[in-house]
Amino acid sequence: MAASYRPGDGSMNALPSSPSDPSLAPREANFVPLTPIDFLQRSAEVYPSKIAIVNGADEITYAAFHARAISLANALRDLGVQRGETVSWLAPNVTSLLEAHFGVPMAGAVLNALNTRLDAAAIAFILEHAETRVFVVDIRLKEVARAALQRTSARPVVLLSGGDDTEAAALGWQSYEAVLSGARSTEWQRPRDEWESIALNYTSGTTGNPKGALYHHRGAYLNALGNVIAFGLGPDSVYLWTLPMFHCNGWTYPWAVTAAGARHICLPVVDPAEIFRLIDEHRVTHLCAAPVVLTMLIHAPAEVKRTFTHGPVNVATGGAAPPSAVIAQMEEMGFRLTHLYGMTECYGPSTGCAPQDEWADLPLEERAVLMARQGVRNVTVSAQSVIDQTTGREVPADGESLGELVIRSNSVMKGYLKNPSATDETLRDGWLHTGDLAVLHPDRYVEIKDRAKDIIISGGENISSLEVEEVLYRHPQVMEAAVVARPDPKWGETPCAFVTLKPEAAGTVTDADIIAFCRQNLAHFKAPKTVVFGPLPKTSTGKIQKFDLRKRAEGIE
Amino acid sequence: MAASYRPGDGSMNALPSSPSDPSLAPREANFVPLTPIDFLQRSAEVYPSKIAIVNGADEITYAAFHARAISLANALRDLGVQRGETVSWLAPNVTSLLEAHFGVPMAGAVLNALNTRLDAAAIAFILEHAETRVFVVDIRLKEVARAALQRTSARPVVLLSGGDDTEAAALGWQSYEAVLSGARSTEWQRPRDEWESIALNYTSGTTGNPKGALYHHRGAYLNALGNVIAFGLGPDSVYLWTLPMFHCNGWTYPWAVTAAGARHICLPVVDPAEIFRLIDEHRVTHLCAAPVVLTMLIHAPAEVKRTFTHGPVNVATGGAAPPSAVIAQMEEMGFRLTHLYGMTECYGPSTGCAPQDEWADLPLEERAVLMARQGVRNVTVSAQSVIDQTTGREVPADGESLGELVIRSNSVMKGYLKNPSATDETLRDGWLHTGDLAVLHPDRYVEIKDRAKDIIISGGENISSLEVEEVLYRHPQVMEAAVVARPDPKWGETPCAFVTLKPEAAGTVTDADIIAFCRQNLAHFKAPKTVVFGPLPKTSTGKIQKFDLRKRAEGIE
Repeated sequence: MAASYRPGDGSMNALPSSPSDPSLAPREANFVPLTPIDFLQRSAEVYPSKIAIVNGADEITYAAFHARAISLANALRDLGVQRGETVSWLAPNVTSLLEAHFGVPMAGAVLNALNTRLDAAAIAFILEHAETRVFVVDIRLKEVARAALQRTSARPVVLLSGGDDTEAAALGWQSYEAVLSGARSTEWQRPRDEWESIALNYTSGTTGNPKGALYHHRGAYLNALGNVIAFGLGPDSVYLWTLPMFHCNGWTYPWAVTAAGARHICLPVVDPAEIFRLIDEHRVTHLCAAPVVLTMLIHAPAEVKRTFTHGPVNVATGGAAPPSAVIAQMEEMGFRLTHLYGMTECYGPSTGCAPQDEWADLPLEERAVLMARQGVRNVTVSAQSVIDQTTGREVPADGESLGELVIRSNSVMKGYLKNPSATDETLRDGWLHTGDLAVLHPDRYVEIKDRAKDIIISGGENISSLEVEEVLYRHPQVMEAAVVARPDPKWGETPCAFVTLKPEAAGTVTDADIIAFCRQNLAHFKAPKTVVFGPLPKTSTGKIQKFDLRKRAEGIE
Repeated sequence: MAASYRPGDGSMNALPSSPSDPSLAPREANFVPLTPIDFLQRSAEVYPSKIAIVNGADEITYAAFHARAISLANALRDLGVQRGETVSWLAPNVTSLLEAHFGVPMAGAVLNALNTRLDAAAIAFILEHAETRVFVVDIRLKEVARAALQRTSARPVVLLSGGDDTEAAALGWQSYEAVLSGARSTEWQRPRDEWESIALNYTSGTTGNPKGALYHHRGAYLNALGNVIAFGLGPDSVYLWTLPMFHCNGWTYPWAVTAAGARHICLPVVDPAEIFRLIDEHRVTHLCAAPVVLTMLIHAPAEVKRTFTHGPVNVATGGAAPPSAVIAQMEEMGFRLTHLYGMTECYGPSTGCAPQDEWADLPLEERAVLMARQGVRNVTVSAQSVIDQTTGREVPADGESLGELVIRSNSVMKGYLKNPSATDETLRDGWLHTGDLAVLHPDRYVEIKDRAKDIIISGGENISSLEVEEVLYRHPQVMEAAVVARPDPKWGETPCAFVTLKPEAAGTVTDADIIAFCRQNLAHFKAPKTVVFGPLPKTSTGKIQKFDLRKRAEGIE
């Protein structure tokens, strides 16, 4: 199963007439390991005085960004970090984490950006599992970091960013800025080969311990270029950091935006007023965001809302299909939505709902149906299919036959750290197995119908929780909804709906209203038998935590 | 000097904590040899019914383009072509040559696109040197192909494209269409590794026999993606084929335009009326062209000229800096120019004059000075420098110190076929040595001052032929000019100018006028001592043939 790529092996390199011409083997002039570090190196050469990063009142040029990344690399080496060791990072979307995406690999090390919503136990687990050598903590997250360090035998060097020397000393840590200032060398390390690890991203771990997906330089480089092309980034682009950088390395946008020579606008806290202000002030052209952020923008108070005329603000969203109402309301404000799909195991987005010319003239409802599909592989992804889980063969492209979405790409992870069995289970038969159940439409766009575990089996019939949710979202008083299986002695399982009503509707809509609405719009056996009102639990990346809802549904008497 | 990339070698892949975890080695799911074949595969999946190619009255969809490329691959296998063997192609910019860029590598073979202006002797030399197995000839070029085949002992299978079975039979050849129709299999070959050869491009060979630069799949893939990004191609782009596809595989645009899912507009004959008509009719957004084509457009008869309002028509031009007058006149017609640099040895463009925001507001003359520079490396090029030819160290970035432009990139050729000494001479010390003499400006933009051999040494002083040409182009009656060294018993060499006057100026301007104008604008020793009027000899790619002019200058009594 291992790839047969041996560029140094002349046997298949040359024409038959020169079967063993060693002059045609790779050499330094024509073979350079792919690494996204090169993107910062180039942008610092081409756009040295351009503002690369805006972080609050700070504006950092590409020359300064580059210089600071090199200082970071040398500071890490000075602290004893060796090639291949882990540097963990706990910070919101601020400058230091952008620096980390270049400075850590420039030290030959591996960046482990931690989810900022993890609790101390989860952080402690990761620090131990990753054998973290240096742990950089933003001052806003010092408490949870301290609690995590108390729970673990791991003893990384800890650096406090965003605070001064006194604050760092009070914690028994060192100051990030002081350590950077102390770095003297301007040398940095290229990866020795492009398969070297560049990042380690732990899955959110809704079941069991989190797994650490290892990324390599080759995949980071290619996925970033694929994103530049898929999202149309150029040197005039301005990218707002609504998506957390700890989430699949911000879908590789720290590297992609830098490759384009575009501008990063940091956003440490997701706040609608701040998002509207920054888009306006910096003429933002692109952002990525989970659906929950779109909902926040749409339902923001009128006094903070703005509409934009500087050109469409391109929004890539993933995790759930944007309902037609969301598409319409976002477009009214000057946004243009693209629906993406991806997962931690493939560096974020692998798949996007590439628009076709003829969609532009369709009525909104028809367009929304097309845009609800996850779509087609990005140009740097080698193959995508939906396969029958029994035979392993591609399902018919009929929009109905359900199978597992699988991906083959240079932007698929190396595997899970210290977890060969999970790696072998996920990367088998030549595919990354996503665990998502999908159909292949006649135009080869994939549409995810459910996570394997999100299928509700009631009286022997399969019910797609997504299908029920789609109906719930059409109810005029529903803001958010999620449907899971509730154990039932008679039917095995029945659908249980968790619903957040719009603020003005609270108290005026009953569970009977919701059930009746669903029965009008669905086969009766698919309508929820139970409805629970209230806010929905979400992961740090804005995904509704169905694992949590399933537990709640089990506990309903 | 050989690269150390061994992805199968676990020793440097994993974190120290899993030094020998074989589950983290590359496997089929996460390691796929890079090849531009994938671009057609994807565009046929995503845009099957979109028009991919317009060739006269023919419109070919992406699905048909893909199907024909697969038929071609199978036809070649049926004809006995083995992996790594050469398929030579002699055709103008028509559909078959686009098909060749995918169908030939899909057979595991190497595409050798021949310059259509070569004479029979040069073609015969290449057919023998490349050991061509199949030779595809467009009917427009059958005479020179026949003459070439008569001069060589090479006995390739010859296919006639653009003609019917009867015409093919009359020549003793087979019909391209008939052979494609006969192909039954729909299988195709992936490269076994990304270092496999994909193309073989012979340099124009102004001195001695042409050299065959071998391209690999990895470089073609990366350079094409780099072009998509540098030129801003997207699915809505429409690309006009003014640049010959035999020239560095059309600068890799057959692959780049296809990667973007954009549209190819073929152009078999470079004719200004046809170019204006096609741009208008198909709303062309991008084209590449040698400076001679820009001159043709500017000096086209008024009745064929058109201006465009469908958005700027982006023009990438290379080989010589566009003078300010050309920039202004092109912009008036609705074109937007970018100046590129590249050579056969690096898959066409490696370097481009990326515009900076602050240039937009400059007066034309200042902008032209900045745009005359070749610029900065493309994002997929790893390094570019100007080095002192004695010390090998980078020259100061002062805009004055002359050195050799050198490039390091995955998009540098493997080497020259059957010519290890030329390969070692060109790819040494970690660089592709371009042979072009350049300066590095303080902003790190390179500017080529001369080919090493274009420096004129007169009385011990170096004279840049480009500097003299720049002055000649400013003369209001001069349309084109080139300056070379003429041997001189007293001075060693003196500058000799070859000048084409504008049609209306012929006979009204004397050599004394030209010399006087140069002495007003240059140090006197740099002014030409000799002026010759008349048309300038050009290579098939529109470059002025200084080699030829030098011989002429030597013969002047």
